[in-house]
Amino acid sequence: MDIKAVVGKNVRHFRELKGISQEELAFDADLHRTYVSGVERGIRNPTVLIVAKLAAALGVEPFKLLEFRC
Amino acid sequence: MDIKAVVGKNVRHFRELKGISQEELAFDADLHRTYVSGVERGIRNPTVLIVAKLAAALGVEPFKLLEFRC
Repeated sequence: MDIKAVVGKNVRHFRELKGISQEELAFDADLHRTYVSGVERGIRNPTVLIVAKLAAALGVEPFKLLEFRC
Repeated sequence: MDIKAVVGKNVRHFRELKGISQEELAFDADLHRTYVSGVERGIRNPTVLIVAKLAAALGVEPFKLLEFRC
């Protein structure tokens, strides 16, 4: 699977686990909601700093967002 | 530690473990040597696609490059 798709799947997974909306995640990570939506759809190619911001807002370690999940 | 520094430390760690130079890693990952050098020094903010290219050239899973190592 493409790494962008892996990141997208993980962001959605941990966001739903936390029970928050894309809008809430975007607010907590200081990003735009459409950007978060693009990440979740595997369209965006985030930098490691963005991955770290998303991870902090989700309460997980950054590497967890790059881990391949079946 | 800053995520860029974590990635840099990991890239250097796995590159040295593989016993290859920055030049060889750059060639294998289809990147410029100065870019790889900047990543290792924690100056660059690579995208997840770049992380995946570096990981493939180093023979490790992409998430390994974001894992915090003491």
